[in-house]
Amino acid sequence: MSAQNIAPELQQPLFEYLLRLGDDRLILGHRLSEWCGHGPILEEDIALANLALDCIGQASVLLKEAGTVEGQGRSEDDLAYFRDAIDFRNLLLVELPKGDFGFTIVRQFLFSTFSYFFLEKLQQSAHKPLAGIAAKTFKENLYHLRHSRKWLVVLGDGTEESHQRVQNALDELWGYTEEMFYMDQVDEALMNAGIAVDLQPLKEQWLSMVREALQEATLELPDPDVYQHQGGRTGFHTEHLGHLLAEMQILPRSYPDARW
Amino acid sequence: MSAQNIAPELQQPLFEYLLRLGDDRLILGHRLSEWCGHGPILEEDIALANLALDCIGQASVLLKEAGTVEGQGRSEDDLAYFRDAIDFRNLLLVELPKGDFGFTIVRQFLFSTFSYFFLEKLQQSAHKPLAGIAAKTFKENLYHLRHSRKWLVVLGDGTEESHQRVQNALDELWGYTEEMFYMDQVDEALMNAGIAVDLQPLKEQWLSMVREALQEATLELPDPDVYQHQGGRTGFHTEHLGHLLAEMQILPRSYPDARW
Repeated sequence: MSAQNIAPELQQPLFEYLLRLGDDRLILGHRLSEWCGHGPILEEDIALANLALDCIGQASVLLKEAGTVEGQGRSEDDLAYFRDAIDFRNLLLVELPKGDFGFTIVRQFLFSTFSYFFLEKLQQSAHKPLAGIAAKTFKENLYHLRHSRKWLVVLGDGTEESHQRVQNALDELWGYTEEMFYMDQVDEALMNAGIAVDLQPLKEQWLSMVREALQEATLELPDPDVYQHQGGRTGFHTEHLGHLLAEMQILPRSYPDARW
Repeated sequence: MSAQNIAPELQQPLFEYLLRLGDDRLILGHRLSEWCGHGPILEEDIALANLALDCIGQASVLLKEAGTVEGQGRSEDDLAYFRDAIDFRNLLLVELPKGDFGFTIVRQFLFSTFSYFFLEKLQQSAHKPLAGIAAKTFKENLYHLRHSRKWLVVLGDGTEESHQRVQNALDELWGYTEEMFYMDQVDEALMNAGIAVDLQPLKEQWLSMVREALQEATLELPDPDVYQHQGGRTGFHTEHLGHLLAEMQILPRSYPDARW
C-alpha cells in the first residue's frame, strides 16, 4: 500500500506509529550489536549478534515503510542516520546502556514478551504492509523470547552472584516497562481505522507471562509502585540516546554524499 | 576423528594448523564485528554483521577441533578467551585496525580470494573433520568474496575520493599479503600426511584473480617489491592484537567461573 491509499488524516499518525516501532528495534538492535565480539562465550556472541541483526533488519523495513507513508522521499537510511534525538520515538527502555550480560538479557526478555502479545495482534492490522511485517517479526521475536527467557532462568536460578545481578537489573528496568503500554492520539486515530493495536488489554497478559518466568528463575517481582519513566514516544529521551546516535550516525553524516 | 586417531607426531602440528585457521577467522570476525551499528547504510550494517558471524562461527568449530586434537580438555572458549597474544597464530593482515569502510572491504577481498583457493583444496584433507569444516566454510566464503569484490569495484570505480581511499588501503595492505602463503615445518609435516594444503601453487591463482578485480575497479596493482611483514604464524604480532584481545577477553577473564 503506498501513501496514496491512506486516508490523508491517517498519514501523519501512521508515520509516527511506524517510527515508534522502527526506532524501538533500531535502538535495541544497536545496543545488542555492542555485544559483538564481547559475549561471555563464542556461542552467545553469535546469538546476540543474530538478535541484533534481526532487530536492525526489522527496523529497516519499518522505517522504509515510514518513509513511504510520509511520502517525502526519505529512505530508511535518511530516517536512521539523519534525525536528531528529539525526532526519535523509541521507548526509553531500549536506549539504556547495555549494562552487563544480565541487564541485556532482562531487557530483552521484558521487551520480547511485550512484543509477543503485540505482534500477535498487529498481524491483523488493516494496513497490509504493517500486517506483513508483523508476521515476519513475530517469528523472529519468538526466538528472542525463548532465548532471553532461557538465560533469565539460567542466571536467576544460577550462582548467588548471577542471581543478584539479574535481580538488580530487573529492579532497575522495571521503571521503564509501563511506557511499553503508552497510548495517545496517534494510537487512537489508527485504532479507529483498525490499523493499530489496543495496548491496554496486553498488560495483564504481559504481566502474567513475566510473573511465571520470574518464578521459575527464583526472582522477585519488583515493587509495582516504582516510579515509571516515560517520554520516548514523544521525543523526550535520556542522555544515553544522544551518545548512541552520535556513534551510530557519525559515518553517514561525515560523508552524506558518498556513493556507498 | 578424535585425538586418538591421529599419529602422535602429527598431533602438535595439526593443533597448530587448526589454531592458525581458527585464529584468522576469530580475529577477522572481531574486526568485522566492530562495524556492528556503524555501517555506512543499514543494509551494509547487516551484511558486515553477517560476515562477522560467519567468521566467528567458523572460528568456533576450528578452535573446538583444535581443542579435541590437543586432547587436554580445552574448549573453543578456553582457546579464544584464555590465550595471550603470543599464543595466537593469525595473520597480521587480519589484526590490523578496521580502518575506514574501504580498508575493511579491501582486506576482506584479499583474504576471501585467498580463502577461495585454499578452502577448495582443503576439502580434500585427509583429516575428515577439517575437510568437513572446509566444505561448509567454502560456501560462506564464496559469499564474502562476492560481496567484497562487488564493493571493491563500486568504490574503486566510484567517486574520486572513494577511489583514492581504496587505492591507499590496497597499498597499505599489500605488505601483509605475502604472509598468507607462509609455510613452515607445520605445513610440511601435515602435507606429507595429506592433511594440509600446499600454498605455493595458490599464489599465482590468487594474484591472477586479484589482478582481474583491480582492473575492473580501475585500481593499480601495488608495488610488488613493497616490504612484506610477517610473524603472526609464529606468535609475533603487532601491538593491535594486544588491544583487540584486551577488549575481547575482558568479560570471560573477569568472571572465569561464571556459569553463563
